[in-house]
Amino acid sequence: MNNNAIGVFDSGLGGLSAVKQMLKAMPNENIIYFGDTGRVPYGNRSKDTIRRYAMQDANFLLKNNVKMVIAACGTVSSVAPDLESVLKVPYTGVVLPTCFTALKESKNGKVGVIGTTATINSHSYKTRINQKNPSFEVFEQDCPLFVPLVENGFIDRNDPVVKLIVERYMSNLKNAGVDTVILGCTHYPILKDAIADYMGKDVLLIDSGKETALYTKKVLSENGLTNTSNEIGNAQFFVSDTPDNFEKIATLFLEKDMNNKAQQINIEEY
Amino acid sequence: MNNNAIGVFDSGLGGLSAVKQMLKAMPNENIIYFGDTGRVPYGNRSKDTIRRYAMQDANFLLKNNVKMVIAACGTVSSVAPDLESVLKVPYTGVVLPTCFTALKESKNGKVGVIGTTATINSHSYKTRINQKNPSFEVFEQDCPLFVPLVENGFIDRNDPVVKLIVERYMSNLKNAGVDTVILGCTHYPILKDAIADYMGKDVLLIDSGKETALYTKKVLSENGLTNTSNEIGNAQFFVSDTPDNFEKIATLFLEKDMNNKAQQINIEEY
Repeated sequence: MNNNAIGVFDSGLGGLSAVKQMLKAMPNENIIYFGDTGRVPYGNRSKDTIRRYAMQDANFLLKNNVKMVIAACGTVSSVAPDLESVLKVPYTGVVLPTCFTALKESKNGKVGVIGTTATINSHSYKTRINQKNPSFEVFEQDCPLFVPLVENGFIDRNDPVVKLIVERYMSNLKNAGVDTVILGCTHYPILKDAIADYMGKDVLLIDSGKETALYTKKVLSENGLTNTSNEIGNAQFFVSDTPDNFEKIATLFLEKDMNNKAQQINIEEY
Repeated sequence: MNNNAIGVFDSGLGGLSAVKQMLKAMPNENIIYFGDTGRVPYGNRSKDTIRRYAMQDANFLLKNNVKMVIAACGTVSSVAPDLESVLKVPYTGVVLPTCFTALKESKNGKVGVIGTTATINSHSYKTRINQKNPSFEVFEQDCPLFVPLVENGFIDRNDPVVKLIVERYMSNLKNAGVDTVILGCTHYPILKDAIADYMGKDVLLIDSGKETALYTKKVLSENGLTNTSNEIGNAQFFVSDTPDNFEKIATLFLEKDMNNKAQQINIEEY
């Protein structure tokens, strides 16, 4: 057992959709979350920049004695998979756990992956899936407007703007006949209803945050790191820009009222 | 006369739309451009962060001995107007020159302003216009999806996505009966055709980059800083992320083929 916190980071606040799933799967664990809101978005930056930022984010969490580090960010998980080798605590991104689920759940072996431009250009999900099963066909699509849509409140499944952009990005995957779609960015679960409406109810949408939460629980257990306290865990939130709008956006991703405030840190120091 | 370069900065590459106008208005001037592509966008960050970034951007240009500094960025011009007081060379943002033109050109005294969320929340254009003429009615609208649209190639006036989002953001201004609209962000000229199609040909669209270029020419002349060389000036470009996509995007904003490469700098050092 180990009562230290789990450390979770993301380029911004999308990673809170993974925290929501972690609170559900492991209510007794403490969580420290860092959202790099001063440097968001990572998804259209260069590889080198993303890696440097990710290392700083992980360092901040390690300074807070976390027992495991989670990159709750499709972009970091895809572009900086080597982060694992330099950390001295267990680590996971969102790619690996999500691919396991796609391999298990797809019936026709046709899987769609959506993510930021950096994620899709890395072919991270496709590579992992085909390593395990070369017969799977993986169809990739970057959706660079999805994050701006979510962050600017365009989330209603009935909004014509949302419907039109979902159709624009998803039509190739629909025409390819995929039966499973990986939501490869932690912002995308917010658009899940709109995506489901377009893809139809026979297509399974995999929430990378949810799969990562379940995988984290397993890794902690296997490494004897589970928090055995009977009390509900504590969640602390840190950001790199001023936390003015934190509560509003956090409520959207966590889907519950937030009493926690966020504290601002200078991430360039880490 | 003074043959030093004019320094121009922006949060990203939108400011190149102002550079395009400067090359046209002052072909003999040298220009040094810095685009903060490693920290773009500024438009939804906090005031303090935007001010700190803007100061670093100006410092980089001053280290290169520029004779004037231009913030070719609606957000910086709106949120950090005090930059002027700490610089030892002439300075202008895009707000002041653009407001002069709106005051002169509007016939019915109803002016629309569109910009990023930070720009609109600052009320910078409205305040300036009403300082000069309190009888003007100024209608403000933030358009946070316009920058992502432009940066992700959604720029065709006939694209249903472009048309629908333009309509969503511009309908209040159209209903208010404005005869003039300030494009208060240097990305927006790229969407000018689509905005014109929706607003109708009787509505004047003011390009803040163009007005700023003409104003810069005037300030240089009044201060005896004009470059009197007969040769075509040189333009140098610097960015804070890797310059991989610089040429492609620069060609979009400058509307001519780019031979110039961009160099990467570490803006955190300034």
